[in-house]
Amino acid sequence: MNFELNEDQIAFADMARNFALNELEPHAAEWDQEAIFPVDVIRKAGELGFCSLYASESVGGLGLSRLDASIIFEQLSMGCTSTTAYLTIHNMVTWMLADFGKPEVVEQWGEKLATGELLGSYCLTEPNAGSDAASLKTTAKRDGDDFVLNGSKMFISGAGSTDFLVVMARTGGEGPGGVSAFAVDAKSAGISYGRKEDKMGWNSQPTRMITFEDVCVPAINMLGNEGDGFKIAMKGLDGGRINIATCSIGTAQQAINKAKEHMLERKQFGKRLADFQALQFRIADMVTELVAARLMVRMAAAKLDAGTPDAGVYCAMAKRYATDIGFKVCDEALQLYGGYGYIKEYPMERYVRDTRVHRILEGTNEIMRLIISRRVLADNATEL
Amino acid sequence: MNFELNEDQIAFADMARNFALNELEPHAAEWDQEAIFPVDVIRKAGELGFCSLYASESVGGLGLSRLDASIIFEQLSMGCTSTTAYLTIHNMVTWMLADFGKPEVVEQWGEKLATGELLGSYCLTEPNAGSDAASLKTTAKRDGDDFVLNGSKMFISGAGSTDFLVVMARTGGEGPGGVSAFAVDAKSAGISYGRKEDKMGWNSQPTRMITFEDVCVPAINMLGNEGDGFKIAMKGLDGGRINIATCSIGTAQQAINKAKEHMLERKQFGKRLADFQALQFRIADMVTELVAARLMVRMAAAKLDAGTPDAGVYCAMAKRYATDIGFKVCDEALQLYGGYGYIKEYPMERYVRDTRVHRILEGTNEIMRLIISRRVLADNATEL
Amino acid sequence: MNFELNEDQIAFADMARNFALNELEPHAAEWDQEAIFPVDVIRKAGELGFCSLYASESVGGLGLSRLDASIIFEQLSMGCTSTTAYLTIHNMVTWMLADFGKPEVVEQWGEKLATGELLGSYCLTEPNAGSDAASLKTTAKRDGDDFVLNGSKMFISGAGSTDFLVVMARTGGEGPGGVSAFAVDAKSAGISYGRKEDKMGWNSQPTRMITFEDVCVPAINMLGNEGDGFKIAMKGLDGGRINIATCSIGTAQQAINKAKEHMLERKQFGKRLADFQALQFRIADMVTELVAARLMVRMAAAKLDAGTPDAGVYCAMAKRYATDIGFKVCDEALQLYGGYGYIKEYPMERYVRDTRVHRILEGTNEIMRLIISRRVLADNATEL
Amino acid sequence: MNFELNEDQIAFADMARNFALNELEPHAAEWDQEAIFPVDVIRKAGELGFCSLYASESVGGLGLSRLDASIIFEQLSMGCTSTTAYLTIHNMVTWMLADFGKPEVVEQWGEKLATGELLGSYCLTEPNAGSDAASLKTTAKRDGDDFVLNGSKMFISGAGSTDFLVVMARTGGEGPGGVSAFAVDAKSAGISYGRKEDKMGWNSQPTRMITFEDVCVPAINMLGNEGDGFKIAMKGLDGGRINIATCSIGTAQQAINKAKEHMLERKQFGKRLADFQALQFRIADMVTELVAARLMVRMAAAKLDAGTPDAGVYCAMAKRYATDIGFKVCDEALQLYGGYGYIKEYPMERYVRDTRVHRILEGTNEIMRLIISRRVLADNATEL
Repeated sequence: MNFELNEDQIAFADMARNFALNELEPHAAEWDQEAIFPVDVIRKAGELGFCSLYASESVGGLGLSRLDASIIFEQLSMGCTSTTAYLTIHNMVTWMLADFGKPEVVEQWGEKLATGELLGSYCLTEPNAGSDAASLKTTAKRDGDDFVLNGSKMFISGAGSTDFLVVMARTGGEGPGGVSAFAVDAKSAGISYGRKEDKMGWNSQPTRMITFEDVCVPAINMLGNEGDGFKIAMKGLDGGRINIATCSIGTAQQAINKAKEHMLERKQFGKRLADFQALQFRIADMVTELVAARLMVRMAAAKLDAGTPDAGVYCAMAKRYATDIGFKVCDEALQLYGGYGYIKEYPMERYVRDTRVHRILEGTNEIMRLIISRRVLADNATEL
Repeated sequence: MNFELNEDQIAFADMARNFALNELEPHAAEWDQEAIFPVDVIRKAGELGFCSLYASESVGGLGLSRLDASIIFEQLSMGCTSTTAYLTIHNMVTWMLADFGKPEVVEQWGEKLATGELLGSYCLTEPNAGSDAASLKTTAKRDGDDFVLNGSKMFISGAGSTDFLVVMARTGGEGPGGVSAFAVDAKSAGISYGRKEDKMGWNSQPTRMITFEDVCVPAINMLGNEGDGFKIAMKGLDGGRINIATCSIGTAQQAINKAKEHMLERKQFGKRLADFQALQFRIADMVTELVAARLMVRMAAAKLDAGTPDAGVYCAMAKRYATDIGFKVCDEALQLYGGYGYIKEYPMERYVRDTRVHRILEGTNEIMRLIISRRVLADNATEL
Repeated sequence: MNFELNEDQIAFADMARNFALNELEPHAAEWDQEAIFPVDVIRKAGELGFCSLYASESVGGLGLSRLDASIIFEQLSMGCTSTTAYLTIHNMVTWMLADFGKPEVVEQWGEKLATGELLGSYCLTEPNAGSDAASLKTTAKRDGDDFVLNGSKMFISGAGSTDFLVVMARTGGEGPGGVSAFAVDAKSAGISYGRKEDKMGWNSQPTRMITFEDVCVPAINMLGNEGDGFKIAMKGLDGGRINIATCSIGTAQQAINKAKEHMLERKQFGKRLADFQALQFRIADMVTELVAARLMVRMAAAKLDAGTPDAGVYCAMAKRYATDIGFKVCDEALQLYGGYGYIKEYPMERYVRDTRVHRILEGTNEIMRLIISRRVLADNATEL
Repeated sequence: MNFELNEDQIAFADMARNFALNELEPHAAEWDQEAIFPVDVIRKAGELGFCSLYASESVGGLGLSRLDASIIFEQLSMGCTSTTAYLTIHNMVTWMLADFGKPEVVEQWGEKLATGELLGSYCLTEPNAGSDAASLKTTAKRDGDDFVLNGSKMFISGAGSTDFLVVMARTGGEGPGGVSAFAVDAKSAGISYGRKEDKMGWNSQPTRMITFEDVCVPAINMLGNEGDGFKIAMKGLDGGRINIATCSIGTAQQAINKAKEHMLERKQFGKRLADFQALQFRIADMVTELVAARLMVRMAAAKLDAGTPDAGVYCAMAKRYATDIGFKVCDEALQLYGGYGYIKEYPMERYVRDTRVHRILEGTNEIMRLIISRRVLADNATEL
């Protein structure tokens, strides 16, 4: 066992921290309040490799491990939770294409996604298939060399502003085995985008419904084989869970950093907040739980990298724990700010709003508990 | 002991519930998103007596008890947390004037405040005197028949849109004994209003800083006697704590009502959410804690009405507990809504944002714990 | 609404407090460590009416309300949790006989139980019917003028040292409708008692399994009518839940009282524990939650007295909340005692052990959540 | 970073698990109920090296890392929490002697302690110096070639049954700088032992007060230099915190294992407990938090091994978190057992009682929070 970052990881983290401080944090409040999707900054991030951290080097990705990527995303999310969260989705889409796409399709999109020149969205959730992803209703019917897509996708990050979609659709019967994955041009005829959702947070990324009406997709655009869609989605979800958990951790760390500064400055009753024991205990617990959450995330990432059979359940545990703790830490940091925590001049309330959705996304934390308990209570389960 | 509402209370509650459903709820989302201060609706509320529930009948108030008022405010807050919270502040201001004002001043403002024709703001908090209210720096210097006010007040609800202010200012030496209270025309020369704060929630009421620069206030406008200001403020706070706690409870009840409806309708994995045992346990705990919180608030109100010596500590307990539980219930209700809970099409995320500030206002929940522990650990404390 | 005790209640409480201080507390540690069932002291309690607080005056009971009884039991449990808990069971048994017994049977046992001359046990739980009481397997088969009982009962308080049993047994088909209740002489032929269970706490009352082998019970000993058993049991449980919740509250109050004394005396780092802010916050929260729990219990008792249709769900809420909070408060009080809290010279660890079982008994707190959610999620549920 | 055990660690863990299953678990209940200090079994443990896991090989220790030791202790504590906890204390004492003793003294005691032939106790806490160890009052006055010890030590594990003591005593002025450490023969003239404390748990190790009355200790028995005592104690505490946290984790893991078995077997309402979703969620959370706690402990141990400057604060975080979570998991496992959890026939209630003291020992969890916050709020603190 070894709990220290190596030199490369430290170097990557520094680079990401700088980017977060200089390119993200100064604008994050504005992006939130004006609901701006900062495409230019995302492209800048792409120049540093942040759009394809773990996509293979063949498409121009950095080919890093999930653990490396988590270390980097954590730093980025300290600058802007919402933008970094979108970046993680784009990374996933890019990796899915690079790993499961046919060569011609990878050729067509890979490098442009890897550099951030083009942006991607991931289309799994439907109005009636949220937690129960296997029941999705969007269909892809074979028609000569094409598949014809019909259906609706919901809560799609980036939708309307992105160029490329990975779409899960039903090519076969009911259940997970009937689902296939497709690489789809976001500008294809028959695709229409709903109105931009007003959300509690995550405002620097647009969220829209997407409707597919007889959208023709070349058969070659299928990712993997027919019926592989759910498997690809699940693989993506393990990584996605680490990513979203990572964004919770980075944000919570930043919340603690700000709370600490505030406690060292703000005086009440003639003393600094930092001198009140009850508040000292509070921040001690915030830090302790954050450190635990970070370890959970990194262990899960390492297991995913190693391909251990228990990686999935560790990803679920990391996602559940880190997103709950991340939110709790941000909420308590807001409280330490008092009235200032409630106004938008300070980032505390944004941290709370942005991290709130992490407990819902990529499988709700309730679904995580199901995944974990299924493993724990399996007859042949090894100890976790 | 008797835990049931009487007939009058039930009738008042019904009237308030109707008003909440018809006049507040349909507009609450818009008021939140557009930051609209619904002055007209507040006046309508005034016509029903909701602007002066416990102000004395001499100024046109209903002269109800604090307990009655809590029962009514609870119902109103089910329609709009933020607007009801402002209403409670206006009620406090009206009551302060009615109870502590000189007859001429009561004459001038009382009835107009009681009916909601004019609106009031309460000016206690300062940039460097939040929790530590006794250290406030705004001064009121005697100058002939006037007092001249100088200083700044912060986080003032309604400021800039209201007509009447109750201002706490220092007429004497340091500490609580040097503070006096004044009735001030909000349009007085020398008063300037800061920009409208962007807040996490409570958006249907404007919040601004107020600066007093040589503002002349007739000496007759002093509420109570010189040096009574802090005592009046503390008296107001006890009631204010019940009121804000009440707004948490009403909102949480509405959140539970909505979550229940959602659980009965929404299906996943072929079952209604209401059929998942883990979610059943969740809502059972939400309801249980809410019922406990409501009891705490009503007992505190009853003690305030009875003037028992321990009323203050019961108000502190009620405020601490009900605002923490109220937020928690809203947060969990959001979670039960899944992704829908995060978008503004549904009220869940607004409930979370609006109730968040209740843990900070009217004395942070940290201050509440100090008040409670001081009493518990006092040598001569009776059992609570 | 009225949250204050009346004069009678205060007088009863004082009497109970004195009894607790003088007759229970001085011996509670010894009874715990030596596993002594203090029959004599229970009889003394009976002389004051504590063995039949809410049994009807016709059998010599005080005929008090459930609320009155809760107020009294709370005081008693401050002296000894475990003994008071047994007393509540005896009270329930006495009340069941008085309310549902045939006159001859009431005549035979009533007064002796009411005075504590004879003691009772309540036999519902079976090895395979814990939470699922309706599935009990003990049978009572009609045989002329008798019923013949066969089966086993588990975790029976007082068993082996009591004189009178109320036994739930199956006289009909499966499910709740097939269960009847019987008044049984504890010395009847065919009854055998298992070994005394070693338990974590509740050591002042013996707990044994009871086996019934062809035990003849006169048919006249049936309580209520054939098939009424489950209904009687459920009625008993509502009261039992209030009682057990009450014992949690009284114990927690005593734990707070002791913790407070300790905080005012014990010094570390040159200051009294009472001067450490983090500990002040801790005791403030303990008191606040205890006050909330007490209110829940009293409201539920008042509803049971009034026979409101929602009484059952309020009893379930009170039991769930008060037993969880009671344990938590005792656990935190132990922590405030530091190392002293862990040794038997002080009562803190006993409070923790004794209150632990309250979360399990009279329907586990998991069953409480089911009861609550069933009501909350019912289509026609009124707001709670 | 690397989160997997290496082959040696797995082999050690297996050996320890076997020892725990075969030599500890079958007797743990009896040792608890009869308050037996299993000296023979501890010696057997010594034969496998478990009495000197991280003492240097020069005294016959295994010279393992703290991380290795934690992995081993975790397995042992699955068999008996209390005995393993004593073993960790003995290990600490042995290590202190080996690392800080003069050669002659090491020669005299080292190997016998390392093999478990002789047993050791650690004497730091005093009646009025619990959390505030630096204020200890026991004195050691120079008298020729000896030091003469006077004073009392409290809550000493093993006292009365051990052969060797490490005693912290004041050789100089007030505060930490005046404390020195001594190796003391437990049979020295002038040492008297108080009565065996009755405790909530940890019953397989005797706890007594020790009184020193003019106890002569050769000056050569001083560990380290004069005034080094507090530093040695603090070094010991860091390791002690990992050890005690480890015992919480192992016990909690065993509690989960048992709870899982019970859930797979026990039926209620016609279903296995494992089929109730609310209970599935419960065990999922128990496992998740336990995994997090284990990571915290192992990271802290690794940091202690590496001698990083932040090792102390990580030890404090690990101790705080793992002992709180360990207790919580055991408490919830008891609840999953229902009534069976409360009786001594099953180990659940013992797990709760034994782990309860871990939140108090080796610095209360309140002291841990102080240590953590001091570091977090230091001006020059690096991020944790």
